[in-house]
Amino acid sequence: MGLSEAAITGGFWGTRQQVNAAATLAHCHHWLERAGWTGNFRHAVTGALPEARQGREFSDSEVYKLLEALVWEAARQTDADRKAELEAVCDQLSATVAAAQEADGYLNTQFGRHGQQPRYSDMEWGHELYCFGHLIQAGVAQLRTRGDGLVARTAIRAADHVCATFGADNPAICGHPEIEVALAELARATGEPRYLEQARLFVERRGHRTLADIEFGRQYYQDDVPVRDAEVLRGHAVRALYLAAGATDVAVETGDTELLAAIERQWEATVARRTYITGGMGAHHRDESFGEDFVLPADRAYAETCAGVASIMLSWRLLLATGKSQYADLMERTLYNVIAASTAEDGRSFFYTNTLHQRTAGTVPASDELIPRAESSLRAPWFAVSCCPTNVARTLAVLPAYLASTSADGIQIHQYAPARIEAEPVPGAGRVTLSLHTDYPYDGRIRVVVDTAAAPGQVWTLSMRVPDWVGSRTAWLVEPDGTRRTVRPGTVHVEHAFTSGDEIVLELPDSPRFVAPDPRLDAVRGCVAVERGPLVYCAESVDLPDDGDVAEILVDPQASPPRSDGHTVRVAAALVGHTDADWPFEPEDSAHSRQPTTLGGLTLVPYYTWANRGPATMRVWLPTI
Amino acid sequence: MGLSEAAITGGFWGTRQQVNAAATLAHCHHWLERAGWTGNFRHAVTGALPEARQGREFSDSEVYKLLEALVWEAARQTDADRKAELEAVCDQLSATVAAAQEADGYLNTQFGRHGQQPRYSDMEWGHELYCFGHLIQAGVAQLRTRGDGLVARTAIRAADHVCATFGADNPAICGHPEIEVALAELARATGEPRYLEQARLFVERRGHRTLADIEFGRQYYQDDVPVRDAEVLRGHAVRALYLAAGATDVAVETGDTELLAAIERQWEATVARRTYITGGMGAHHRDESFGEDFVLPADRAYAETCAGVASIMLSWRLLLATGKSQYADLMERTLYNVIAASTAEDGRSFFYTNTLHQRTAGTVPASDELIPRAESSLRAPWFAVSCCPTNVARTLAVLPAYLASTSADGIQIHQYAPARIEAEPVPGAGRVTLSLHTDYPYDGRIRVVVDTAAAPGQVWTLSMRVPDWVGSRTAWLVEPDGTRRTVRPGTVHVEHAFTSGDEIVLELPDSPRFVAPDPRLDAVRGCVAVERGPLVYCAESVDLPDDGDVAEILVDPQASPPRSDGHTVRVAAALVGHTDADWPFEPEDSAHSRQPTTLGGLTLVPYYTWANRGPATMRVWLPTI
Repeated sequence: MGLSEAAITGGFWGTRQQVNAAATLAHCHHWLERAGWTGNFRHAVTGALPEARQGREFSDSEVYKLLEALVWEAARQTDADRKAELEAVCDQLSATVAAAQEADGYLNTQFGRHGQQPRYSDMEWGHELYCFGHLIQAGVAQLRTRGDGLVARTAIRAADHVCATFGADNPAICGHPEIEVALAELARATGEPRYLEQARLFVERRGHRTLADIEFGRQYYQDDVPVRDAEVLRGHAVRALYLAAGATDVAVETGDTELLAAIERQWEATVARRTYITGGMGAHHRDESFGEDFVLPADRAYAETCAGVASIMLSWRLLLATGKSQYADLMERTLYNVIAASTAEDGRSFFYTNTLHQRTAGTVPASDELIPRAESSLRAPWFAVSCCPTNVARTLAVLPAYLASTSADGIQIHQYAPARIEAEPVPGAGRVTLSLHTDYPYDGRIRVVVDTAAAPGQVWTLSMRVPDWVGSRTAWLVEPDGTRRTVRPGTVHVEHAFTSGDEIVLELPDSPRFVAPDPRLDAVRGCVAVERGPLVYCAESVDLPDDGDVAEILVDPQASPPRSDGHTVRVAAALVGHTDADWPFEPEDSAHSRQPTTLGGLTLVPYYTWANRGPATMRVWLPTI
Repeated sequence: MGLSEAAITGGFWGTRQQVNAAATLAHCHHWLERAGWTGNFRHAVTGALPEARQGREFSDSEVYKLLEALVWEAARQTDADRKAELEAVCDQLSATVAAAQEADGYLNTQFGRHGQQPRYSDMEWGHELYCFGHLIQAGVAQLRTRGDGLVARTAIRAADHVCATFGADNPAICGHPEIEVALAELARATGEPRYLEQARLFVERRGHRTLADIEFGRQYYQDDVPVRDAEVLRGHAVRALYLAAGATDVAVETGDTELLAAIERQWEATVARRTYITGGMGAHHRDESFGEDFVLPADRAYAETCAGVASIMLSWRLLLATGKSQYADLMERTLYNVIAASTAEDGRSFFYTNTLHQRTAGTVPASDELIPRAESSLRAPWFAVSCCPTNVARTLAVLPAYLASTSADGIQIHQYAPARIEAEPVPGAGRVTLSLHTDYPYDGRIRVVVDTAAAPGQVWTLSMRVPDWVGSRTAWLVEPDGTRRTVRPGTVHVEHAFTSGDEIVLELPDSPRFVAPDPRLDAVRGCVAVERGPLVYCAESVDLPDDGDVAEILVDPQASPPRSDGHTVRVAAALVGHTDADWPFEPEDSAHSRQPTTLGGLTLVPYYTWANRGPATMRVWLPTI
C-alpha cells in the first residue's frame, strides 16, 4: 500500500518513526560524511580516486539506502516545512551521487578508474550490481512518491546500463543478490518489461556455479543450486533472502507458479527449522549464514539486523502473492524482535547482530568509535561494515506500506498499530477511510473504525489477521452489529456494506505465556522462553538482585503462569549459585550441586529493550528448575 | 624423555605409530609434492618464483613439519634398513629446503623476491617467523637424535638470522606464535643462550598492540594483553597454545616464576571453562578461536586437530615444570579423543576440525579432492590449509617422549601403553630398564616390571599417575612386596630399592560411566556423555535400527549404568520420533509430543573411531529421558 494510503498515527511504531525521522536519518548522514563514504562520490568527480577512497567496496550502497529512507520519509511527512527540508537533503545527496555517474550509466566509486580494478572484474566480491540494486530501490521510492526526480533518473540510467551489459549473452551474476528485487520493482514502477526480464535472467542464472568456489562454498552466494530447485534457504542470510524476494517478484510478474511454489517451500523449511524465536535468521558468525536445521545457538546467534529487513521484504512479497497470514506473522515477529531491537531508544546506535544470550556484560563503546560488526554487547553508533543502520532507517520510513493491502473485493489489515488507511476497497466504489485504534502490542484489543464509507450499499470485505501466536487461546471478533464470535489464527473476514461509524473490534489474548523449543533445538534444551503477543521477553542482569548474572536463573513454569506488570512480565524463579570446578564434566551420579535461592519473582523485559540500561548479561531462553 | 630412552612396544599407540610410519608419512610427502609445496623450494632455486608458487603463505611450514616427523620416526626405528630409508628421504627433502636458503639465513618461498612482497612486510599474516619456528623444531629434532645434519644446520642459520633481525631494537612479532617455543627448544638443544633471549623478547613483546587491529581483534593473535597479565587463553586457539608453550619454556629456562604462574593460571581457567570433554580447544569456526567461558557448542565444535597438538605441547611443558598430574590428564584426554580421532584407521585421511555432533551424514570426499578445512563429515586426504596431517604425524612419531620423565630421585610414568623405558632414576645409579604391560585404555590394569635394576640397594622413587577420570571410584596399587593399597587421583609414589623382576601394578576402574556437564554449558544441558577410562564415547547412526538418526536418541541414565561390550558400550535408551511443526516454538503446556520407542540398548563407540564406517550422524552428548 502506498504511503499516501496508509499512515501510522502513534503508538509503538509511531514513536519509532518519529525517532527515525528526528534522529536516525541525520545520524546516518553524519556518519556517511564522516566516514568519507559520501565523499567518495565527490572524489570521483574531482579525479581523486582511487587514492582518496574510504570504506569497503560496498560503501556506495549505504548512501543509496539513506537516499531511499529520505525519499520515503519525505513522502510520509505531513508537515510541509519538514517535507521540504528532507527533499532538499535528498536532492543535494542525489546531486552528489549523480555527478559521479558515467556517460554509459555506470556508477561505482570502487571500480573502473585508472589504478582501480576494472569494472565487473570481481563478480564474487565486487558488489557492483548489489550497489546498483540499492540505487534502483531508492529510485523506485522516488518514482512511487514524487513521480520523478534525480534519484529516479540516475537509477534508470544505471538500470539501462545493467540491461545493456548483462543481457542474454553475459552469464554473469553478482556475488551479492539485490539487483534482482530492485529491477523487478523498477519494472513495476515504470511499466518497462525489460527490467523484469533482466531480473528474471539474474534469478535463473544463479545456482549454476559460475561464481568461484570460495572457502565458504558456493552456497554462500546461493550459486550452488538453481533457485527453483532449492529446498531451503542457505548460505549468507541476507544474500539468500534478497534473492528469494527478487525471485518472488519475478515469479509473480511472470506468472511462474513453479518458482513461487519453490520460494514458498524454502520459506516454510527455513521458518520451521532455521529461524530464531525472535524471527532472527542466520545463525553463524563465520559467514553470516544460515546453519543446518536446528542449529540455532542462543549465545552465538548472529541474526543480523539486515537479515531481518530482508526477511520482511521476502515475507511481504509472499503475503501479497498468496494472502497467507503466516507471512504477516513472521513479519510481525521480526519487526518487534529484530527491527525494534536493533535501534537504541534515541535512534543513534544500533545492533548489527542480535544475540539471544549475552554472557558477559560489555563495555560502553566510545561514541566516536567504529565497531566491528559482530560486537553485540551494546549498540554502537556506526560500524566498519555499516549496512544495518541505513537498512533499518529505510524500513521504518516505509513501514506504513506494510500495514494493509487491497484486493478486488476489499481491504486486508496485516499489522496492528494506531493508523489511518485510505483506500478503494472495490474498484469504482470510491475511497474508504479507516482508522485503527489500539495499544498493541501491550493490549490485544484492536478497534477498526470506518470513518468514511464507500458508495452507499457497497459491500466489501474487511480482512484481519488473527496472529499465529494466539495459538489455542480464545480470540474474539466483534462485528459492526455487535455480534461477538471467536476466531482462530489465520485470517478473519467481515463482508459487509460498511457505513461511516461502523466499528470492528478484534480482541486478542494479551497475557504472557511460556514457550518451549522443539527438542531438536539442542542449544536451548531444558529452557523456556516467555512471549506476550508478538513480543519475546528476556531476563537482563540489571533486574537481578546484587549484581546477579543471568547464568544463575532457574525458572519454574509449573509454579505459576507468567503475569504482566506494565510492560514487563514476572515469572516464578530461583537463583542458583554455581561452584567452579577444575573440570566441568562430572560423573552423572555426583551431579553438579545446585542450591537455589527462591526469588519472589523475576522481572523480564521485552527483548527489544535490552541493553538500553547499560552493560548487562541477558538471556531469552531460561533454564527450568 | 629422549626416544632412545622410551619406546612404545605395541597396543593402542603402537598401532598408530606403525600406521604413521607405514602410511601417513608417505601420504603427506606425496601430497606436499602433488600440491606443489615442496616444489616451491625448487622453484626458489631456479628463479621461477613468484609465478610458479603454489599454496598458502604458510605452506613451507608443512614441509618442515614433515621433516620433523621423519627425523623422529627415523630415530625411533630399530630396523636399520627402514631407518636408513627414512633418513635418506629426510636428507633429500632437507637438501631441497636448504638449497633455497639465502646467504643471510633467510628462507621463505613467499617473500622477498622480485614480484613478491618484501621480507617481514606483513607481520600480521605473513607467517615468516612461524615457518622458521617449524624449521627450527625440525632442526632440534635432528640435534636431539642424530646430533647434527642438514636440517639442524639450516635451522641454526635461520635462527641466527632471526636473532640478527629481531633483536632488542626491533619491536616486531609474528602474527602466528611458534618461533618462541622453537627458539627456546633450540637454546636447550645447543646450549646457546641467545636463542632463549630472542624467545624471551618475542614473548615479552606480545600483548602490546604492535600488530594491526584486525576484524577478529588483536586477541586473535594474543596481542591484546601481555602474556604475564592474561587470565585465560583466548583468540585463535593454536596461536594461543603455541605461545603459552613458548612462554612456559622461557619461564622455566629463565627462572621466571611469575610468568610460569601466569601460564598455569591461564591453563586452569581454560580447562575449567573453555575445553571440550574430548580435550578439544577452540570452539569458534569464525576465527578458529576460543569462545567465551562455557561457549562449547557440540554441533559447531571447531576443536582443531592442531589445537590438540598444541595443547599437548603446552601441557607437557607444564607437567615437566610442576610435576602436577592434571597436565598429564589433559594430555591423555587429548591424545585419545583428538589426536587419535583425527586420523583414519589407514592413516591416509584426517579431520581438521573435530565436531562433537554431526547432524547430517556427509558424502564421501573424492580421494583426490582438496577439502576446505572446516568440513567435517568424513576425514579428507588433504586440505587447502593442511596444517593438521603433518602436525599429527610429528606428534605420533615423538609420542614415546611423553610417556615418562626423570627427576633427581626417580622415574615418573605419565602415560600408559605397552612400553620399554630405559633411564637413570638417580644420578650415578646406573640405568634402569622398565617394561610396561597393559591393554590400556580398554583394561585398567597396568603392570610395570623392573627388567634391569639400578645399583644394588639403590633406593629410588617410581611415580605413576592415577588419572583424574578415576574420580571417587576405587583404584589400587600393588607394591613389589604384594601390598595392595587404594590410591586417589593424582600421583602415587613407590620409593623402593627395586631389584630385577620387581613388579608394580596399578589397577584403575575401567567400567564405563555417565558424565554430566556443568549447568553453565548451555549447549549440552539435559544431556549426558559416556566415558570409559580416558575414552569419550559417541552414538553413531550406523548403529541405530532402520537408518535411524542420532537426533532420535534419548538415554535413560537412571535405568542402568552403561556396560562394556568389547570396545563398545551399551546404554539403556529409547528412540523418539519427531513431528515437524510449521514453527518450532510451542506453548510450554502443549509441549512437543514425544512417543519414545524403547530400544533393547544403544551401542556407543569410542569417539576416536567415528566416521570410519562411512557417512553417519553422530553425537557425543545424549539427551536424557
